[in-house]
Amino acid sequence: MNGSTDQVSLPARIAEPGEGITLDELRLAARNHAMPLEALRYEITPVGLHYLLVHYDIPDHDPAAWRLAVDGAVDHPLTLDAKALRVRPRAAHTVTLECAGNGRALLEPRPLSQPWLDGAVGTARWGGTPLAPLLREAGLRPGAVEVLFTGADHGLERGVEQTYARSLPLAEALRPDVLLADTMNGGPLPPQHGAPLRLLVPGWYGMAQVKWLSRVTVLTEPYDGFQQTTAYRYKQQADDPGEPVTRIGPRALMIPPGFPDFMSRARVAAPGDQLLTGRAWTGRPPVTAVEVSTDGGVSWQRAELGPPADTYGWRAWRYRWPAPAEGLHHLAVRASDASGRTQPTGQAWNRQGMGNNMAQEVDVLIRNSQEPTGS
Amino acid sequence: MNGSTDQVSLPARIAEPGEGITLDELRLAARNHAMPLEALRYEITPVGLHYLLVHYDIPDHDPAAWRLAVDGAVDHPLTLDAKALRVRPRAAHTVTLECAGNGRALLEPRPLSQPWLDGAVGTARWGGTPLAPLLREAGLRPGAVEVLFTGADHGLERGVEQTYARSLPLAEALRPDVLLADTMNGGPLPPQHGAPLRLLVPGWYGMAQVKWLSRVTVLTEPYDGFQQTTAYRYKQQADDPGEPVTRIGPRALMIPPGFPDFMSRARVAAPGDQLLTGRAWTGRPPVTAVEVSTDGGVSWQRAELGPPADTYGWRAWRYRWPAPAEGLHHLAVRASDASGRTQPTGQAWNRQGMGNNMAQEVDVLIRNSQEPTGS
Repeated sequence: MNGSTDQVSLPARIAEPGEGITLDELRLAARNHAMPLEALRYEITPVGLHYLLVHYDIPDHDPAAWRLAVDGAVDHPLTLDAKALRVRPRAAHTVTLECAGNGRALLEPRPLSQPWLDGAVGTARWGGTPLAPLLREAGLRPGAVEVLFTGADHGLERGVEQTYARSLPLAEALRPDVLLADTMNGGPLPPQHGAPLRLLVPGWYGMAQVKWLSRVTVLTEPYDGFQQTTAYRYKQQADDPGEPVTRIGPRALMIPPGFPDFMSRARVAAPGDQLLTGRAWTGRPPVTAVEVSTDGGVSWQRAELGPPADTYGWRAWRYRWPAPAEGLHHLAVRASDASGRTQPTGQAWNRQGMGNNMAQEVDVLIRNSQEPTGS
Repeated sequence: MNGSTDQVSLPARIAEPGEGITLDELRLAARNHAMPLEALRYEITPVGLHYLLVHYDIPDHDPAAWRLAVDGAVDHPLTLDAKALRVRPRAAHTVTLECAGNGRALLEPRPLSQPWLDGAVGTARWGGTPLAPLLREAGLRPGAVEVLFTGADHGLERGVEQTYARSLPLAEALRPDVLLADTMNGGPLPPQHGAPLRLLVPGWYGMAQVKWLSRVTVLTEPYDGFQQTTAYRYKQQADDPGEPVTRIGPRALMIPPGFPDFMSRARVAAPGDQLLTGRAWTGRPPVTAVEVSTDGGVSWQRAELGPPADTYGWRAWRYRWPAPAEGLHHLAVRASDASGRTQPTGQAWNRQGMGNNMAQEVDVLIRNSQEPTGS
């Protein structure tokens, strides 16, 4: 009965060549979840299909006891309860959120963490009160440079005991579309998405969208906590400080055509024209192009784009694939955005598996139905 | 470009000794999901935290075109649309549902399929119209022995193309608590839980709760389809016909105490009395006892039981663990039910990994907080 942390919280590591998915990764995959790709058909992702990542445990929340503190470099520190928040001005935005680790488990070699394949995304209608007026009411003091957001979820990570916290540069925190959100798709915020209150920073990866928000602290020095300076960095070596993970890179996903095999999720579709559809998004909007390849990436064709769901909401795309031959075909899709970024067709590896927006590849077998008659 | 099914739908297999979780298993774990165990705190599981298993894809559902057919060995075959169903008598039950494969990935050797650990469970308030009066209105013909329920999800499984379908013995189908459910927790049935209509058979494992229900067919011979006679059997060998999987075995789960490490999900708790809590359920109610071990299964103590949420709804339990010593402790919990069944402390292996209700084990490290002051 040894009481050291070493037993329960180990340093990060990269999978060995050929190493299968570990039990640690499976435990994370079982409780967190991606959006099933057929749910790309919904412009607003239904609750329960939106991707979910909970760093530690979903906190137990007592509505009567909950308070939001606004403190730090402000003239008038504030404490608000649920009622005080409800009477403030309201706003709502349709926003696509994506985990910075989406695509991690596709990397070679594979960084060991939440083992996302490609579905760590979702789009919801988030409602709440804008943050900027609240900060102005509190009175920003000269020298304010960042705003720190502290949640209520508590745990250990690589040996560091912590309550989840992330900061934003002051200019980002003062954007008019940054919300303290308490509704999702018109209903109360579900526990797993941060009830009673979460931060919403349209365009940024999920780590910035602090859930179970309890404290907003104006800082005069940049925050150097674990989730800011150790986790969520693009880096090649363990001792490399790396670059911060911020906005979402462009990505398009397609609804895998036809129907799946249960175990392999391999796809089979009937002969005839195939209408390929999906959604594309970016944190530097708008998405300017979606291209589809039906020959394994040799050639690319422009897909037709629908309107964006909102400034930071995904947009639908479609591409008619005329009567492919029977047999196995290799499809791929990639998006480009207003910043000039295009999804790569190969991986851009980094040690934490962040921002891997490599183009999606989907194999599909075209063949006639083999379902027994009458079943 | 070969068009054979062999490329995409392989026979079942068992993991090799030491074989890590496969990419096929990870694909399933990423889209399906367990209930995070801290959600045992909710008597009614919030939507999105209830476990989810989708065999193939969530079907696309056109509300205007949807119909339910009632046919087979009946005097008056019926076709009902959503409006015709809404005006029928209503009922609601609080029911704990569990996947028959819960616990599969804990087995040694590990059958390869959806790799559940222990959280493939949830409890919802399901509302709808009782099935029995509808069958009686259709007029059961002499010789009726089973009722077949066909969903709308279509796929391949072990080489067999199929639309998901399962049957019930006639006596089970006529139970007054069997529902055609169209609401969950008071709201519309979400797409992933079977919208617009699913079957609800309280007490049975999840495979019987057919989602996206399109057809109810009265049979005069037992159904011999894939999900009835190949899948969902307790069997030791591939060519063993096995015994059918039916009702849920007893199981208790505890909320893992303290807080987790992100990567390993290992638990750490502060010194002092620990109130251990959780829920227990069975398909042969009521749960008659929950026992807790704090010494790795050497001795067991009775937990205090709360009332069941409903006939087939789980019941809360709690056990005060007085001031454990600092260091690592091995906890376990097990339930017994009215049929005399008690959860085993070791595995009862079968080839498909069905009904593994081995007692839950949770290790917890008792030690003082190491969170830096002021963070």
